[in-house]
Amino acid sequence: MALIVQKFGGSSVADAARVMNVARIVTDTYKAGNDVVVVVSAQGDTTDDLIEKAKEINLNPAKREMDQLLAAGEQISISLLAMAIEKLGFPVISLLGWQAGFNTNSVYGAARIKNIKTNRLNAEISKHNIVVVAGFQGINRYDDLTTLGRGGSDTSAVAIAAALHADKCQIFTDVEGVYTADPRKIPGAKKLNEITYDEMLELATLGAQVLNNRSVEMAKKYSVELEVLSSLNPVPGTIVKEKVKMEKMLIRGVTKDADVALISVVGLDDNPGVAFKVFAKLAQKNINVDIILQSVGRNGTKDLTFTVSKENGPLAVSLLEELSVIDGKKISCKTNVAKVSVVGAGMESHPGTASKMFEALYAQNINIQMISTSEIKISVIIDAEEADRAVAAVHNAFIPQD
Amino acid sequence: MALIVQKFGGSSVADAARVMNVARIVTDTYKAGNDVVVVVSAQGDTTDDLIEKAKEINLNPAKREMDQLLAAGEQISISLLAMAIEKLGFPVISLLGWQAGFNTNSVYGAARIKNIKTNRLNAEISKHNIVVVAGFQGINRYDDLTTLGRGGSDTSAVAIAAALHADKCQIFTDVEGVYTADPRKIPGAKKLNEITYDEMLELATLGAQVLNNRSVEMAKKYSVELEVLSSLNPVPGTIVKEKVKMEKMLIRGVTKDADVALISVVGLDDNPGVAFKVFAKLAQKNINVDIILQSVGRNGTKDLTFTVSKENGPLAVSLLEELSVIDGKKISCKTNVAKVSVVGAGMESHPGTASKMFEALYAQNINIQMISTSEIKISVIIDAEEADRAVAAVHNAFIPQD
Repeated sequence: MALIVQKFGGSSVADAARVMNVARIVTDTYKAGNDVVVVVSAQGDTTDDLIEKAKEINLNPAKREMDQLLAAGEQISISLLAMAIEKLGFPVISLLGWQAGFNTNSVYGAARIKNIKTNRLNAEISKHNIVVVAGFQGINRYDDLTTLGRGGSDTSAVAIAAALHADKCQIFTDVEGVYTADPRKIPGAKKLNEITYDEMLELATLGAQVLNNRSVEMAKKYSVELEVLSSLNPVPGTIVKEKVKMEKMLIRGVTKDADVALISVVGLDDNPGVAFKVFAKLAQKNINVDIILQSVGRNGTKDLTFTVSKENGPLAVSLLEELSVIDGKKISCKTNVAKVSVVGAGMESHPGTASKMFEALYAQNINIQMISTSEIKISVIIDAEEADRAVAAVHNAFIPQD
Repeated sequence: MALIVQKFGGSSVADAARVMNVARIVTDTYKAGNDVVVVVSAQGDTTDDLIEKAKEINLNPAKREMDQLLAAGEQISISLLAMAIEKLGFPVISLLGWQAGFNTNSVYGAARIKNIKTNRLNAEISKHNIVVVAGFQGINRYDDLTTLGRGGSDTSAVAIAAALHADKCQIFTDVEGVYTADPRKIPGAKKLNEITYDEMLELATLGAQVLNNRSVEMAKKYSVELEVLSSLNPVPGTIVKEKVKMEKMLIRGVTKDADVALISVVGLDDNPGVAFKVFAKLAQKNINVDIILQSVGRNGTKDLTFTVSKENGPLAVSLLEELSVIDGKKISCKTNVAKVSVVGAGMESHPGTASKMFEALYAQNINIQMISTSEIKISVIIDAEEADRAVAAVHNAFIPQD
């Protein structure tokens, strides 16, 4: 007998029929002799609808009140799922975030879990109840409700699995697992049986959008074995863990991220502290910088190039214009670019990975504007229009086709 | 400076425009130098919509889960109202039932308030916050959410007013106060300036549906001065208190209740314990009996007649059929009847009230099937089709027309 945590997203519980479907998955797991804790998000578009209601009244409401409002979404979905499980004849209880012991800090809208007081959870499991927990939410030291931010339900599920030392944490989605590329766009994309935390982190950051990044970080930290699988099709999914068996594939996936703005400053004085001043300014405004490249320019100057999200592009440029070290230098911001990356722990011991990727792009006549590498990842910035073609070319070069 | 509790029902906060309207009423009261605690119900049809969602999944769900579900309704309305008050530039905080200290027993769906721990409420008032509290809900000793049942928000408001020793508890509705009869049906119906708790209780029981009965009982018990007034039209409403100035009117109101089933058993043996056995049986099934009449029948038998709600009529009959004392006796159940009542503390000292009422009915040729009186109320059971005509006739006989 194992203790299994199962997480279902909003689309998995969007209507009565889907709630019943989730109830069947949960009770099948329970019938097999397992203890089950289920974490659910708000139904379908509930969160967006609540945000819309708020905006009609106040475009910039206090974040505390926004969290009070949004937390109602999971309250509805957990009680409905509990009713569905009861309907199938199984013992069940629903718990709100605070009832399940989720203590967080007070950063409304993006709270961090401080700890989970597991008394109630353990008591309900001891009574052989299936426990349905509201994801995404907790309570702070003032007894006020908080939310963990978008994707927070994944984090809730992993946190419970860690706190209860669960045997497995299953994240149910509308895809069957983690693929080597977006299967809707790349016909030859393959589902991975296993993937490491680090690889998953790189894939998540790069826009694969299967798992929330904070949840993967937490799973890695507490060694929680994750499985990503489909709530609609009952086949084995992708296991995410520390070490995986070597497979034939050199890389785990090819991803595209179109949410990139490429900012360049040309001809900066070659003095110490320039990079510090630039990025400290951006950090003050919470602008996340992804790739950074500094290169030697003409006549003893240097050029600085970096990427931020498209949304942050204009703000980043105006912040740079305020800096004295930038004064009078040419700043450009390109948004018609995309980032294409290959990820795989295997590339550490295969020096040819980068050249193989570049060869595939060259064969398609795709120009590379910027390159960045880490131990398990190679990213290139290319023209946005060529991104899909680039992903297909690189994927076909690395992933053996049947 | 006074402390004022204001309660707004679901229709008063049904959409963004109405929420803003409520925010203006609340902030006007605050601007006038008062501390304000606001109690709100769920928006418009939210509660019905949530019940509908539940029924799609489970026709008979656990009441605990139903309360967990329904409590989300006020959670949404309090945070939206807080955002509206913030938008108008006033300090505000919303509190869920448990955050506001509402401790109840564990009768899910119809919980009773045990006490209100006022620490948080007092702390927020001390900070000069307008406090928006979720009506209808509380928490039991197991940290599970409970609801007080329909109309529970009135009770929440009165309970807060009592616990905080508020100067006044204003109940905002979609009518301007308590009328001598339903103003939509009786053109000469007059708004009352004042009414006693006891009169209000009789009117509420009789179907006036302005105030929830439990809230009036609680207001009487803790001497909370109530005011019933309109959220749409800012004119003085009706004050409900212990003693009121005598007005010219002998009675306070005429009401009709069509939800009546009249059950008769003819020819019962005239032995002790018959009435006990009948009504104990009904009480076991929580069937509320309103008027009871026992009269001498033929040949040393007795006849028993009583009223229950229409819904409970068939069940009451089948329960009676199980009783040995009833065995073989004729049981009839009439549902084409209505109860028309006059209420007024003044009638205690005016013996002519009953005859004046009967005279008015006689003049309309309306047959009285049953009569019941209390110190401040006279009720008659008549044919349902004649009820509206009866109300008009009795109203015109008692209420001086301009």
